[in-house]
Amino acid sequence: GYLFLMDNKRLDQDVVKTFISEGRAEIVQESSISEMGYITKPKKDEKELLNLSDIDGALLGYNCGIIEPDRICAYYESELRKMGVSFFYNTEVKNLRFEPQTRLNYPGEPFLWQKMEMRNLETSNGTFRAETTIVCADMWTNVLLNSAGIDSHVRGKKRQVFRITGEPASRLMSHTMRPEQTVMPFTIFPSYGIVMRPEPGSSSVWISVADDYNRPFEEEDDPKPEPEFYENSLFPVIRSYLPQFSSCRVSSMWAGHYSYNTIDRTHYVFKEGNLIVATGSSGSGIMKADAIGRVVSSLYSGRKKTTLYDGSSIQTGDLGVEERHVSTEHMVI
Amino acid sequence: GYLFLMDNKRLDQDVVKTFISEGRAEIVQESSISEMGYITKPKKDEKELLNLSDIDGALLGYNCGIIEPDRICAYYESELRKMGVSFFYNTEVKNLRFEPQTRLNYPGEPFLWQKMEMRNLETSNGTFRAETTIVCADMWTNVLLNSAGIDSHVRGKKRQVFRITGEPASRLMSHTMRPEQTVMPFTIFPSYGIVMRPEPGSSSVWISVADDYNRPFEEEDDPKPEPEFYENSLFPVIRSYLPQFSSCRVSSMWAGHYSYNTIDRTHYVFKEGNLIVATGSSGSGIMKADAIGRVVSSLYSGRKKTTLYDGSSIQTGDLGVEERHVSTEHMVI
Repeated sequence: GYLFLMDNKRLDQDVVKTFISEGRAEIVQESSISEMGYITKPKKDEKELLNLSDIDGALLGYNCGIIEPDRICAYYESELRKMGVSFFYNTEVKNLRFEPQTRLNYPGEPFLWQKMEMRNLETSNGTFRAETTIVCADMWTNVLLNSAGIDSHVRGKKRQVFRITGEPASRLMSHTMRPEQTVMPFTIFPSYGIVMRPEPGSSSVWISVADDYNRPFEEEDDPKPEPEFYENSLFPVIRSYLPQFSSCRVSSMWAGHYSYNTIDRTHYVFKEGNLIVATGSSGSGIMKADAIGRVVSSLYSGRKKTTLYDGSSIQTGDLGVEERHVSTEHMVI
Repeated sequence: GYLFLMDNKRLDQDVVKTFISEGRAEIVQESSISEMGYITKPKKDEKELLNLSDIDGALLGYNCGIIEPDRICAYYESELRKMGVSFFYNTEVKNLRFEPQTRLNYPGEPFLWQKMEMRNLETSNGTFRAETTIVCADMWTNVLLNSAGIDSHVRGKKRQVFRITGEPASRLMSHTMRPEQTVMPFTIFPSYGIVMRPEPGSSSVWISVADDYNRPFEEEDDPKPEPEFYENSLFPVIRSYLPQFSSCRVSSMWAGHYSYNTIDRTHYVFKEGNLIVATGSSGSGIMKADAIGRVVSSLYSGRKKTTLYDGSSIQTGDLGVEERHVSTEHMVI
């Protein structure tokens, strides 16, 4: 499940009522949250200093959970290898450039008046040649396409995860809320969208947040997690709700990038010549990968409609730039 | 006027018929174009090599023309000085960062849980303090806002202008098409959107193009014009239509950036805390400045509707991100 800890104001939102009336979630009482070990009413001075919300209750979503990205990727890799697909790891693609369709062997081509296409992909592992190139390089899409003069419509922003280990974290992690659960639900704090994910293997929890102001849009080759970000920005808030976490420690941490489409936070899938671009996951890369793969396939095959996993269909151009028709993704955590 | 040189296929477009039926433009016959000195049917080998279109006629727009940006800016500056506005030239603004509303004097603030605002503007000319900061720094908006973690929704792309001088250019420049004209109309070639603007003061023409593929999205401190771009990409096309230009020379050239919103090519005007951002001119910065200034004023004053120069009104949020409601600008040249 996903457990959204909320104050009364948020519990009273229409979206909460909709989830419940659709049978997709239930309200959890404040007392059940307290039983898990949370301080539901932070101390007055902390509340004022840290601008904290109370926990007056929670919304528990049913059809939510955690997944292991490595396992999903490993499955697809093995299936694709059976189908004859080759994988090249540790192969860096140089920035993309269009080439002339018909080479004149004159320095500086392609010129404005030459028909251009994406043909040779220069990599650290030699040159690859393709009829069609599909760029689904997440936040690197931006960097790769800038040189070709194509706007990827996405921006990279660093995201960090801190693994918190210790007896209180272990105890909270094993606190289930429904019979089918084996660990605590993925939990969203009532303040700042801080999230906490169980990691059963290490009896730890992961803590993260999608911070906004002053977190630069940039692409770093090797983004570093910042221990002081946990200490100064995350821990004070966590401690107000879970004071027992003071005896836990950061046992590991790592950083990566989200590739954000900051307008509607949904993928862009579009074609430029013989190049197909699928990007803008905005944090939902795996959850939407099946649908996006189908849209890419339609775009490649020239199908105007795309049939999704559940049999429903969308216009292939709905996720494009020109004829874009999507609603805004509000579930970015 | 604006003179769009076109082949029959383009002349047959609905948008052409609409302009004419609205009394905003007229068709110019091929013979009149020939009289100006154009080769309307390029030679077969050039046409094939350069992928050129014929000139079967043209559309001449009435209420179009050229303006002197310097004069417009000088006028507004003098009016604003009368109103008490100070101008600081040669003052570089450092990248923007949010600051805590209430400073704790603890290293590393603002932290996630602090209320933030844009307060002090660090510049090469000292620190400026403002209740509200309006960023209308064209393509630099992107660079300035990245550090604050705000997506400007625009990308910079280099644009170049080449001034062509010589007797044939001078002769073409003084060729008027309607009684009220004193020089040739701003002209759009039938291929690649190459444009030619008269510069009466120097009896020259300016030639430019908004090239797309392989023209990187990037922000350069000092973008340089590329003589070889004129020689290899522009001149071969120009020469096919105006062979007499072979005796002209590039007497000057310069480069700058367009700040592109590549989605709908219209401005973004939005508010983030006490920061207002007006950007995304996409080449229409001056033409739309009056309207955009009014939208900024509404956003600052909290007015939901903005009255434009002609008395019509739009929703202030129409140009924002969340409630954006604009049609795509097709007139980007």
